[in-house]
Amino acid sequence: MIELSLEATKEFLISLFLTYGFSQEDSIYLSDSLLAADLAGVESHGIQRMIRYDEAIHCGMVNACAIPQIVFETPISAVIDGDKAMGQLVSRDAMKLAISKARQVGIGMTAVRNSNHFGMAGAYAAMAAEQDLVGVAMTNSEAIMVPTNGKKAMLGTNPIAVAFPAAPIPFCFDAATTVVTRGKLEVYHKRELCLDGDWAVDPSGQISRNPAQIIRNIRAKAGGGILPLGGAAEVSGGHKGYGFGIICEIFSSILAGGPPSYQTYLCPELADTSHCFWAIDYGIFGDKASIRTAASRLLMDLRNSPKAEGQQRIYTHGEKEQESIREKRQKNCIPASEKTLKECKGLGAIYGIPCHIEKTGSSTIALPHLTEGDKR
Amino acid sequence: MIELSLEATKEFLISLFLTYGFSQEDSIYLSDSLLAADLAGVESHGIQRMIRYDEAIHCGMVNACAIPQIVFETPISAVIDGDKAMGQLVSRDAMKLAISKARQVGIGMTAVRNSNHFGMAGAYAAMAAEQDLVGVAMTNSEAIMVPTNGKKAMLGTNPIAVAFPAAPIPFCFDAATTVVTRGKLEVYHKRELCLDGDWAVDPSGQISRNPAQIIRNIRAKAGGGILPLGGAAEVSGGHKGYGFGIICEIFSSILAGGPPSYQTYLCPELADTSHCFWAIDYGIFGDKASIRTAASRLLMDLRNSPKAEGQQRIYTHGEKEQESIREKRQKNCIPASEKTLKECKGLGAIYGIPCHIEKTGSSTIALPHLTEGDKR
Repeated sequence: MIELSLEATKEFLISLFLTYGFSQEDSIYLSDSLLAADLAGVESHGIQRMIRYDEAIHCGMVNACAIPQIVFETPISAVIDGDKAMGQLVSRDAMKLAISKARQVGIGMTAVRNSNHFGMAGAYAAMAAEQDLVGVAMTNSEAIMVPTNGKKAMLGTNPIAVAFPAAPIPFCFDAATTVVTRGKLEVYHKRELCLDGDWAVDPSGQISRNPAQIIRNIRAKAGGGILPLGGAAEVSGGHKGYGFGIICEIFSSILAGGPPSYQTYLCPELADTSHCFWAIDYGIFGDKASIRTAASRLLMDLRNSPKAEGQQRIYTHGEKEQESIREKRQKNCIPASEKTLKECKGLGAIYGIPCHIEKTGSSTIALPHLTEGDKR
Repeated sequence: MIELSLEATKEFLISLFLTYGFSQEDSIYLSDSLLAADLAGVESHGIQRMIRYDEAIHCGMVNACAIPQIVFETPISAVIDGDKAMGQLVSRDAMKLAISKARQVGIGMTAVRNSNHFGMAGAYAAMAAEQDLVGVAMTNSEAIMVPTNGKKAMLGTNPIAVAFPAAPIPFCFDAATTVVTRGKLEVYHKRELCLDGDWAVDPSGQISRNPAQIIRNIRAKAGGGILPLGGAAEVSGGHKGYGFGIICEIFSSILAGGPPSYQTYLCPELADTSHCFWAIDYGIFGDKASIRTAASRLLMDLRNSPKAEGQQRIYTHGEKEQESIREKRQKNCIPASEKTLKECKGLGAIYGIPCHIEKTGSSTIALPHLTEGDKR
């Protein structure tokens, strides 16, 4: 891993997005979204994804000039057709709309169809929490989860994010409903390791711990995929992760009128993913200050509860990301792989944008822990 | 296991609840709730629990004459003080209120505090689905879940239930956010088996597969407990189950103004559990018939998707319970242990209620599979 300058990378990304035809405001937002993921330690959703966004824009999967439309609306809800927009942009606007409805009537729920990869689900849940509301965000995605007893990927990683305001650390949960993400398999693959657990199945539906084989099959849509949270069997709760995956699917694609995960990404010109965003003004349950205090105390009590032998800390969700952001902001840099830097330089060369993003005096740093950046 | 007559057991239970001072209507509802769990194959929430409800009523934990009060209300929400009611009764009324609000404004969310064990979370979610609404139910409960990296039980089994109308089988998800329930440990204990997985920790926070030891420690509040869905480590998603447990806690106790799981059941006279109930009229997202059709197709496609080698079926949530109910209704009986029958006869003797509930001509039947009835 190497280190990139935060400012220089942001400047480069903004120029790149402007070149594609995004507005100044949207280019800044997109750039910030990618860097926010890298700052939080979620490399899989950070600038390493830029090369894929570039491809998506080129082949028409993403429409840089999209004009999303509200196709159905009530005082409490809305359905938005994303017009193939960058997922981040239509999602930002959909959560803003949910927030404004929550301010009016207590709750706002919006559903988006005809969209693209939206980055980190937690980012939208956090938008609501920053406005002192409860935030929820979900999305469907390319099929990768095999149902309990199945052998074909039918659901996406289908993440569920929930954020709640609390001091000093807001609660921000953001988890794929699969046991691990594809990103984690790729990390094991790159390091030539066998998987540490029963996380994936081969095309016959049997457990495989060979990441190369699993990734090859997923890419070729040859069968098999990743298991739900809880693993292969009902005895360890695999049907629960599978159920959370269905819940995510219902609240995103079914309510939005979009296709389910197994009918997304069917051709290079169309992702057709769906999302949903909820904002809840928790003042509809009483005095907000008291409720926020109770939430803060709950989280504090969990963090302060006795540690297992050999463990130093108990975390609450969002805490690790906040610490990662603080540390990287202080150092004014984000980590990246040589490959990501090379891809950025390649994009810079194509579009004639200077790409001097390495941090001056940067030295090669150690590979992050396996659980960092791909724990979603 | 033996077989009990459905009608005779219902009659017996109604007489029992009337004796405690519940109204005719409430006695029928309570009786039906317990039998519904046994019919669905969820023995842990069925009539085997009657002996515990009897104790709870006697020691003042449950108030048979409770008059729950709405303590905060908006057109979209309400907070209810349960007055120590039987959890089933205040929960039925709280979901009814959520449903009536959903009919008025699209969404209804109610939160209940000062309540008791409410039975199956899925029953309340299903109430909404039967009214062609989305239903959600959650509850906190006696602390039994150890946070990731912890060694003290801080959260309850904290189940989350979500139901959605669909044909021919509605979706009805109902899952503890722990990897297994205490009921499953008890089944392993009774059968003198070691646990099949890393499901629980001892008072030092280390994995234990000794169910006798774990149950003893839980009863004595001596430390240790059950792990979250996903298991002990972040690498297999243990932090995700822990997070879903916190989400359940926030939406139940924190919004209701009740104590968190680790402050419930502190003395024999007070359970002080909290619940929440949501009803969402999914017509706020468009044409209901189209949405319901899309949901039905999603569930059908999942059930019909290719099976892993050695597997005959892929289920969607609620399907197994529906089949169990159909089969037991046809046979007009429910299974029960000798112990449960003995306890019922004991209660009958105390209160002078005839207890001839064994099915005539009933023969001893095989023990159910380990995953039956305790898979929540």
